[in-house]
Amino acid sequence: MAGRVDAKLAELGIELPPPPAPIASYVGFNVVDYTADFGRRAGLVVISGQIPLVAGKLACTGKVGGAISLEQAQQAARLCFINLLAQLKAACDGDLDKVKRVVRLGGFIAAGAEFTQHALVMNGASDLAVAVFGDAGKHARTTIGVPSLPADAPVEVEGMFEIG
Amino acid sequence: MAGRVDAKLAELGIELPPPPAPIASYVGFNVVDYTADFGRRAGLVVISGQIPLVAGKLACTGKVGGAISLEQAQQAARLCFINLLAQLKAACDGDLDKVKRVVRLGGFIAAGAEFTQHALVMNGASDLAVAVFGDAGKHARTTIGVPSLPADAPVEVEGMFEIG
Amino acid sequence: MAGRVDAKLAELGIELPPPPAPIASYVGFNVVDYTADFGRRAGLVVISGQIPLVAGKLACTGKVGGAISLEQAQQAARLCFINLLAQLKAACDGDLDKVKRVVRLGGFIAAGAEFTQHALVMNGASDLAVAVFGDAGKHARTTIGVPSLPADAPVEVEGMFEIG
Repeated sequence: MAGRVDAKLAELGIELPPPPAPIASYVGFNVVDYTADFGRRAGLVVISGQIPLVAGKLACTGKVGGAISLEQAQQAARLCFINLLAQLKAACDGDLDKVKRVVRLGGFIAAGAEFTQHALVMNGASDLAVAVFGDAGKHARTTIGVPSLPADAPVEVEGMFEIG
Repeated sequence: MAGRVDAKLAELGIELPPPPAPIASYVGFNVVDYTADFGRRAGLVVISGQIPLVAGKLACTGKVGGAISLEQAQQAARLCFINLLAQLKAACDGDLDKVKRVVRLGGFIAAGAEFTQHALVMNGASDLAVAVFGDAGKHARTTIGVPSLPADAPVEVEGMFEIG
Repeated sequence: MAGRVDAKLAELGIELPPPPAPIASYVGFNVVDYTADFGRRAGLVVISGQIPLVAGKLACTGKVGGAISLEQAQQAARLCFINLLAQLKAACDGDLDKVKRVVRLGGFIAAGAEFTQHALVMNGASDLAVAVFGDAGKHARTTIGVPSLPADAPVEVEGMFEIG
């Protein structure tokens, strides 16, 4: 039986991919286990920066404000968050209902010196976080511009989540 | 009655603004509640990247080493830390004496490829952290250059704090 | 008597430098003490961004893909991780066998807009993490390009570690 979050994903028409396999010496995520308030066991999930891969290929490449339009960049940020969700699901042993909070998202926008719409791009990830998790999806956020990203990705998003 | 940290802020002539209201799908901060050593309850406060807003407007815009001088950039970093303090005060339910440690600051300096004085700029935030909190203000720090920041801000600073 | 990790470092021919002394208002690391699962005491070590300093001087300066070749950049990333280890050893009161996991590494590669090989550069740090700590060295990772770094360093790496 699908959980509450799985049902919401289905409602949004989102099918999570298998999380990208570990490449070389790093992994998709690590979980720091800790005792939360009132003795509750919890985990802080730290997830690697995700790029807009679809079935192992980048959905688009290039710079935002250049080859990539604002709308394409927002879609790319949304894809990054879907890949974060795929990693998060693995960190939860398949049960996304264990997610207590999206603690923080970090957004990296590949763009030139003159670009100013970083926040609008990153909303592609942030809005999906809230669509999926409701109030628990409201997160702290840092968004910056960068000259380049791995494999010429236009956007990269990393995340920190509380599960328990 | 004002607390110890509030008294120090008054001595420094710093009046904290109200924390900027949540925009869209993200919030100013999240608190991860945990059990510290010896059963003490504590919280890890993760605060969104802050830009040098004063009363809702950027104090300055442009690139450090270009339109923005070193001195202006240091002042901008100081303003970012004041905005972090405003968020932190809200995370402490108004009582900044709950702050145990400034764990980490991340600094982002909008500048060109030839810029090298990132550390001096970031000291505008770091020196205020120690002026306000003393030894508890000594933090781990990562400072990098970026080509651009949201709304053409010259500096952005994010922070992680321990409260309890 | 040297510990297990010290023995591995000796086997790899790596001598850890003394950790760089605190400069101004920031420190090399902070430790957040917490109660892990089953009442175990643990610490989350947050380490400042490290540049490829050797005996207080940068091993190389300039941009990756420009003055700095891919191979030099990988060596620089490796040196950054050695400096992280020096800080980590101080955080462990000298006993690196207390390290439970390399939780996360963040890598910053100074390069132009056309650069795409960030992941290969960062492997210089990641591969050493696994060579030193084995499976416990497998970490979450975020790698991005930046236009410039403090003191014209080509690479900067920050880290988060679990000790206990």
